[in-house]
Amino acid sequence: MREDLRQFVEPRSVVVIGASAVEGKPGHEVISNILANEYGGKLYLVNPKGGEILGIAVHSSIAQLPEGIDLGIIILPANATPQAILDCTEKGIHHFVLAAGGFAEVDEHGEELQKKLISIIKEKGLRVIGPNTSGHTSTPHNFTSTFFPEGKIRRGKVSFIAQTGNFGTHTLKYILTGEHFGVCRVFGLGNKIDIDECDALEYLADDPETTAIVMYLESFKRPQLFMALASEVTRRKPVVLLKGGATDAGRKAAVAHTAALASEDRIVDGLLRQAGVVRIYDYTHLILAAKGFSMLPLPKGNGVSFSAPSGAMLVVLSDLCIRMGLAVPDLAPENNRRLQEISPPYIRMRNPVDIWPAATTHGVEFGYREGTEAVLRDPNIHAVVPVLMLTRKTGIPSYDFIVDLAHKYPEKLILVTFSADKECMEECKAYLEPRGVPTFPDIEQPFEVLSILYRCYQAMHRPR
Amino acid sequence: MREDLRQFVEPRSVVVIGASAVEGKPGHEVISNILANEYGGKLYLVNPKGGEILGIAVHSSIAQLPEGIDLGIIILPANATPQAILDCTEKGIHHFVLAAGGFAEVDEHGEELQKKLISIIKEKGLRVIGPNTSGHTSTPHNFTSTFFPEGKIRRGKVSFIAQTGNFGTHTLKYILTGEHFGVCRVFGLGNKIDIDECDALEYLADDPETTAIVMYLESFKRPQLFMALASEVTRRKPVVLLKGGATDAGRKAAVAHTAALASEDRIVDGLLRQAGVVRIYDYTHLILAAKGFSMLPLPKGNGVSFSAPSGAMLVVLSDLCIRMGLAVPDLAPENNRRLQEISPPYIRMRNPVDIWPAATTHGVEFGYREGTEAVLRDPNIHAVVPVLMLTRKTGIPSYDFIVDLAHKYPEKLILVTFSADKECMEECKAYLEPRGVPTFPDIEQPFEVLSILYRCYQAMHRPR
Repeated sequence: MREDLRQFVEPRSVVVIGASAVEGKPGHEVISNILANEYGGKLYLVNPKGGEILGIAVHSSIAQLPEGIDLGIIILPANATPQAILDCTEKGIHHFVLAAGGFAEVDEHGEELQKKLISIIKEKGLRVIGPNTSGHTSTPHNFTSTFFPEGKIRRGKVSFIAQTGNFGTHTLKYILTGEHFGVCRVFGLGNKIDIDECDALEYLADDPETTAIVMYLESFKRPQLFMALASEVTRRKPVVLLKGGATDAGRKAAVAHTAALASEDRIVDGLLRQAGVVRIYDYTHLILAAKGFSMLPLPKGNGVSFSAPSGAMLVVLSDLCIRMGLAVPDLAPENNRRLQEISPPYIRMRNPVDIWPAATTHGVEFGYREGTEAVLRDPNIHAVVPVLMLTRKTGIPSYDFIVDLAHKYPEKLILVTFSADKECMEECKAYLEPRGVPTFPDIEQPFEVLSILYRCYQAMHRPR
Repeated sequence: MREDLRQFVEPRSVVVIGASAVEGKPGHEVISNILANEYGGKLYLVNPKGGEILGIAVHSSIAQLPEGIDLGIIILPANATPQAILDCTEKGIHHFVLAAGGFAEVDEHGEELQKKLISIIKEKGLRVIGPNTSGHTSTPHNFTSTFFPEGKIRRGKVSFIAQTGNFGTHTLKYILTGEHFGVCRVFGLGNKIDIDECDALEYLADDPETTAIVMYLESFKRPQLFMALASEVTRRKPVVLLKGGATDAGRKAAVAHTAALASEDRIVDGLLRQAGVVRIYDYTHLILAAKGFSMLPLPKGNGVSFSAPSGAMLVVLSDLCIRMGLAVPDLAPENNRRLQEISPPYIRMRNPVDIWPAATTHGVEFGYREGTEAVLRDPNIHAVVPVLMLTRKTGIPSYDFIVDLAHKYPEKLILVTFSADKECMEECKAYLEPRGVPTFPDIEQPFEVLSILYRCYQAMHRPR
């Protein structure tokens, strides 16, 4: 199995069946993506019209292809897909990405077609991602089979398994345009007639490039195997799952989407917990969890400190921490003392940290720097969230001190969030994130991420 | 009482005691804000040094002021505040905003000072906002007493009551720089030794400029009166509350913040529910709820439709709706039929709406426009969330159709969210929001807002 997956993840040669000269068509965009990612293997194109697309010669039939290409990407209508696969097998191609929708997820005719596909792949011993998939991505190999206009896909260390096309397409586009982290492998499973979440999970478990796994699933094809695999991998790598179809309304939508029959949610929940899979509920958390895994270590405990420019935020964020399973512990006396030293005498300093009096007395940078280091030093504190209050008039700190502190305390987590001027927040994000410090526009988000990361840490160290 | 509040909200003349020539100091910024907001009344300044600040002559003592100024803003250290008040009363000033912190929220000396203040205001019959307040704002009167560098504050129809300085300061700054809606009145209550949430609520209840009330409180000074007032006003205007100190950790932080002793949370919860106050839990929801009230009517039911470019989003958002107390009802046959007409035959169209096949067949604009109108027409649908998938390569719609539909169906709510390219999302926001259509960067947020607005509608129509 691992060898089969390797053919997808590290193909030495690839053919696009249904290559198109028309910009915007999937059969064109997939080529454009492969080129933009500077794929190092051999790329073949097939289209009956022949000619040349994006500088690459086009074969007018599958029969003209050389023998033994590693991977076939078939971007043809559903009806034409089975024959194209059969033709490819004649040329020794055994691994396929099937882009077409219009199978079991739509109607009876599609279901028939899907059965036909399944019997072909069984008979010929093929391995298939899809159908109804938007492709897969493997940045360490500079390769992608997605037909969504991505351009160069930033390399990262978090991998995704998604029973949907949209993760590896427009959500990935958001990550590339709105965030500073990258991705490692992305499997868009589609209708998963062959390769499913178990295959992908098994591969990623031993993939040295993958340090964390984020999943979106609507169903479990082999639930027992999945739970067994997950039980093992979650002791070594964080695994986070958004399970679509947790409600009746969601299940109804899931049938229309990937023909998936979702299971009773409470049972699923118990099994996932046992298997150490950390469950999330918001789509946005797929992105935020990945951001956390990409830029932070796991917290070794749930002790959090935060410094805010406002008493109300200290109150509300304390409430939030408790709701999220985090703690806001008291500091060791020497660290309280340091906080008191930098603050006016009329403020009683403690955790959480009321930072603005220190910032107004000694300057914004000094206040946040000294305040943040005082709590980073504390043995009960595993993660620190500075809420930076940013306006030009009240003073913008140099953000280097945050980068320096992140390096000085590598086992502790620093997550930055903001208040006040939007433009300053965006400048701060643009400075800090390429330097490895994550920022979050909403003040709740760092705590949501911390909660997910801490639950992963707990899962990793759960009793056997 | 209403007359007293009017002195704060519509002062004809104002004096700043502790005016400062030094940019960045609170005693300077408050003047700068008053000027930036083009306050139409008379503005006096007092500082022992005399001279001129920002073009305004400075009186060197309170004794030199004319008689009967409506409102005194005292920006002096805590110790100097009581005497300044006494001096002001000699000149017939009876209404004050007290900016200084350093009272009961810090230590015993502060508590003594606060007691002294209370006895002065009782003896002299004064009305006071604060101490430990960052001021108040009244955009219909072009006035603010905040000392946080805001500049011109955008006028709106939602008013805020906040037992914290940060709402009317840096959170307001965020609203002004990151959003397109404005505010009406903002009361930063501080330690509320005199004017409290009841006074403010009573005023806003009959304030014709205020259409919705958003509150942050850490304690109830007069709980019974508050619940009685709220019971009445919530039948006419939405009232939303974030109650800080819902947990022990939060309560501990609240004592340090405003010396507030928070009450048992479950009891509070029941009383608020009876009074029709809609409770929220995230600080960010203070902003999002205000955005909803500013740009949308209340939904007359909980029926939601959304169109997304991805089956997974349809599934996850269906789950989310159910969790949020919203419904995803079936459409009337003629509306399903319209959706089917614009879509390829292999997709079974229904609510929620899988819009991308129509968008790829007929163009992004046509797909979203026709898809959105088909569901807006439906009697079971009260709110519609188009999830716009935006990249230049897949095509950017003209957003006018959304503005047009919002005008054509004024009783229905349209909330826009996004997927894919961050830059395109920001352009869309910049186009739609000044034209009255709210947008939200995270796909969960429109549903969170809808849930809050629908709960307000329910509260307004609850049985007596």
